[in-house]
Formats: sequence, C-alpha cells, structure tokens
Amino acid sequence: MCEANAYLQKPEEENLMVMENVYKLRPEQGKILLENIFGEQKLLDAELLQVSLMEHKIILKPKTS
Amino acid sequence: MCEANAYLQKPEEENLMVMENVYKLRPEQGKILLENIFGEQKLLDAELLQVSLMEHKIILKPKTS
Repeated sequence: MCEANAYLQKPEEENLMVMENVYKLRPEQGKILLENIFGEQKLLDAELLQVSLMEHKIILKPKTS
Repeated sequence: MCEANAYLQKPEEENLMVMENVYKLRPEQGKILLENIFGEQKLLDAELLQVSLMEHKIILKPKTS
C-alpha cells in the first residue's frame, strides 16, 4: 500500500495530520485537493512543501492570508 | 516499493516520462524538484498537475513562458 499521510506544517509545533491514506493530490484553484482511499476529499488552503513517497508523507504549509 | 514515475503532459501527444523511481517531489523557486531513489535530481520548469500514489504517477505541465 502506497498511500501517504498528509500533514500541515505548524511553526514551533508538531506537524498536524490532516488526512490519512491519501492516494491522490492535486493543486486546485490555488488550494490543495487531497483524496483518500475511501473517496473522501479535502480542499485545503495550503501550498505543497514536499511529497516523500519513501516516508509516505505529504507536507503542506497553511497559507497566511 | 512506492516510488512513482514522473511525466510531462504534452498536448495532443502521449505524456513524456521525465524520471523513473521518483521518491521525493518539492516545489522550488517556481519549479518542481524531483529526486529518484538513486539520488539523482531534476529541476523542471513545470507545475504540478497531479500525484496519484495508486497509479504511481506524477503528472507535470510544462510552463509556457
């Protein structure tokens, strides 16, 4: 199984997990759309920092608007 | 093994594979940095369209500048 967990990077805190078992990621209208293996979707107002397939981690940074 | 292959989307053509066995992806200075399991890196002037961990595919779109 190659899904990843998605985290929001929090300054001076541990990263916050926002979705488990993500199998699809797509930038959408300046946001990041995540989809998990159960078909659930989350659209986050964040930018992508890194996808690491070895660690199964997607790291996002919340937009400061 | 959970690496993905990275493709550039070509209009009216088959997608062009630009890197195999990618395990890390990171936006960098408006470009996309890919790294494979052999430690090779490619910095592509492209934007991310989609990461599909189920299909092991990273789809990029060349920037039209």
